[in-house]
Amino acid sequence: MPITLILGQILWADTTQPPQPGWGVAVENDRVVATAPHGTLRSRFPDADVVEATDCVITPAFVNAHHHMYGVLAHGIPLEEAPAGFWPFLEDFWWPRVEDRLTGDLIAAATEWACLEMVRSGVTTFYDCLEAPHAIPGALEVEAEVVRRWGLRGVLSFEATERVSPENGDLGLRENADFIAACRARGGLVSGMMCFHTTFTCPADFIRRAFALAAERGAKVHMHLSEGTYEPRYCLDHFGLRPVVYYDRLGVLGDHVLASQCVQVDAEEIAILARHGVHVSHQPLSNCEVGGGFAPVPEMLEAGINVALGTDGYVNNFFEVMRAAALMPKARLRDPGAMPAEVVWTMATQNGARALGFDDVGRLAPGNQADLLLIGADLPTPLAPHNLAEQLLLWRNPRDLRGVMCAGRWLLRAGKVVGVEEETVRARVAEAAARLWQT
Amino acid sequence: MPITLILGQILWADTTQPPQPGWGVAVENDRVVATAPHGTLRSRFPDADVVEATDCVITPAFVNAHHHMYGVLAHGIPLEEAPAGFWPFLEDFWWPRVEDRLTGDLIAAATEWACLEMVRSGVTTFYDCLEAPHAIPGALEVEAEVVRRWGLRGVLSFEATERVSPENGDLGLRENADFIAACRARGGLVSGMMCFHTTFTCPADFIRRAFALAAERGAKVHMHLSEGTYEPRYCLDHFGLRPVVYYDRLGVLGDHVLASQCVQVDAEEIAILARHGVHVSHQPLSNCEVGGGFAPVPEMLEAGINVALGTDGYVNNFFEVMRAAALMPKARLRDPGAMPAEVVWTMATQNGARALGFDDVGRLAPGNQADLLLIGADLPTPLAPHNLAEQLLLWRNPRDLRGVMCAGRWLLRAGKVVGVEEETVRARVAEAAARLWQT
Repeated sequence: MPITLILGQILWADTTQPPQPGWGVAVENDRVVATAPHGTLRSRFPDADVVEATDCVITPAFVNAHHHMYGVLAHGIPLEEAPAGFWPFLEDFWWPRVEDRLTGDLIAAATEWACLEMVRSGVTTFYDCLEAPHAIPGALEVEAEVVRRWGLRGVLSFEATERVSPENGDLGLRENADFIAACRARGGLVSGMMCFHTTFTCPADFIRRAFALAAERGAKVHMHLSEGTYEPRYCLDHFGLRPVVYYDRLGVLGDHVLASQCVQVDAEEIAILARHGVHVSHQPLSNCEVGGGFAPVPEMLEAGINVALGTDGYVNNFFEVMRAAALMPKARLRDPGAMPAEVVWTMATQNGARALGFDDVGRLAPGNQADLLLIGADLPTPLAPHNLAEQLLLWRNPRDLRGVMCAGRWLLRAGKVVGVEEETVRARVAEAAARLWQT
Repeated sequence: MPITLILGQILWADTTQPPQPGWGVAVENDRVVATAPHGTLRSRFPDADVVEATDCVITPAFVNAHHHMYGVLAHGIPLEEAPAGFWPFLEDFWWPRVEDRLTGDLIAAATEWACLEMVRSGVTTFYDCLEAPHAIPGALEVEAEVVRRWGLRGVLSFEATERVSPENGDLGLRENADFIAACRARGGLVSGMMCFHTTFTCPADFIRRAFALAAERGAKVHMHLSEGTYEPRYCLDHFGLRPVVYYDRLGVLGDHVLASQCVQVDAEEIAILARHGVHVSHQPLSNCEVGGGFAPVPEMLEAGINVALGTDGYVNNFFEVMRAAALMPKARLRDPGAMPAEVVWTMATQNGARALGFDDVGRLAPGNQADLLLIGADLPTPLAPHNLAEQLLLWRNPRDLRGVMCAGRWLLRAGKVVGVEEETVRARVAEAAARLWQT
């Protein structure tokens, strides 16, 4: 396969380094082979195909470190009455009306829509939690088939719990373990992760089994952690310990752990998470939606925790999630200097890749995966290295994406999703949602 | 002029009333003449032109109750060093580098861009504060010329202060008073409002003169109020009173007052604002930007205050501002039921119109102004009266607007701004910003 040169107005190859005006990227197969000034690339690779993108900024593609692709099916679903709180929401509505009714067919339609939204929003790498207790075994393979077809780098997991039955809990753990092994044997862009729900839906021995199975497979483990005040209260009531302290006593924490949410964590818990190298994914918009609170992200970063960003399957516009991550801490801390734009971009790229265990994603460097964005540079005010992070963070949106590449393959070009009739995807998920709502 | 029927999938004529599937609007000249089911409209107006919009929801257009159109010129402007706080930000950066350098030419370019952004975002009515002390007299007429050409309903004001000199302060008050009178004599969609800055930039007698001049003209008065902790501290230090109490003592409060921001207001101040019928405009995203805090909007609404929404010239995507207004209170109050979607839509339409003194804007009813939006109904999940407010609030964006009408005139149709080359407008503002940054 010939080398392709992508020549941008500015290359921002690594969000922790300064942007480079007049630089570009050379791509061969699925990898970056060089980053350099246009002239250097042209002389080094005289026979390369050239993509002129001098009206664009080149950045690494986004990593959505927490998604629930099936969530779209429930957007707008009728509620007989508003749930009285977090537990009634799960027990009277979300579990029986949504998760328990999911079939392979509905999951496939939702996955398709989620892939479309990710491509349009600049996400090429993602981690997903599926909970659909009556669609296993095999639910993850249903998702994987769709994700492979779209060419996205997906880390898929099933959120195992014993809430339906101990047998169903086992089935969930096995769904993950088998999927992890199958993906590893097969290779490609889709892989698996171990996952269980929370301390209040999973007993200690179930949690220990999840970690043991993951260790056997050399896999990472994901759980939801203190998304609101419910879980800390539950753990204090049942174990006399806050959730992170409880996990620490179970002896399961380490840098193989990805904890999502972490909204209601106190200073001691932040220190424990940091000490063990636990990765955290932050979902600012859905934390609002559920009334969870404002996660102490600057405090977690300050403690040295690797914090990534996710959409949680809620507002899947990654630019808007980045803005929320940048803006809400400034108000909470009454400090306009909190959460500089560069830090948010780093969370959205490198930190996400690290959280998911990829060491060759999130930065455009020779040998790394060619996962990149072409973001239109046609802003109403000048774009320069000194203001690039903030200009792109504040004033760009999915509609400004001109190109999205994953592993060397264009998924979006000239602003259009490649090879996909968007209206067909939309009609399919709308029909699936209507079916879910009627059952 | 013939009557036009606009036939939607759903008409949501008044955000405090249920949406009506299969309804439409009849428009004659600048006004709504009827709202009814499609069939009724067709038989009542058999000779009307018909706009088929059954792939759209019809809603009232948005009211942006607080804008700084000139603000766009400063997006990304180089800062030699980060300001050490609110006061250094104003005194060392914003005033000398931005406001003091504005000329008529720069103001016109910024206004043009702001009008484009408003049309693309569904805003047809807005209130703007301009501060450009060396561009008066005449700065408001420069803006007005552009706004009239765009066909938007603009309420323009100059933010008078004595910070440059007492003479310049006088000039600012007169700029407003003369503009209010000139617009009233001329008629049309552009009008004026009296405006001064704050308690910490305007002495008491200056404030009293602003109110007296406004009273002579029968005009409303706008000020910024407690955008952060700076102003309450200043008032306590200088007057021994919190800002709202200070205004109450000056005897100037009433329903002719529009106070923007109101982030740091306590319970007593909320009660005083409510008692006097003061209108408040809320700018959730810029409150974050400046580290102001989270405004107590549900508390102000609960107290009976008319709270409107604005962009503050920051992120001028009105859908995103609405989402921020809906979501952040849920996190702050840890209550997912706070700020229901219907309330946010009402703030974005009727409340804004009321705050600006329009009794025939913000609701589509016979006799009212024909200011409306056609919002694409092609969501990934079903749209129905029970979920309309939330579906449109969460999942729609400027790119989903198919039509924007102001006073019976289409400003955007089929997703395109009518009669405007968007790239030309962008190039003009970019050139103006470059000039501002170089001076």
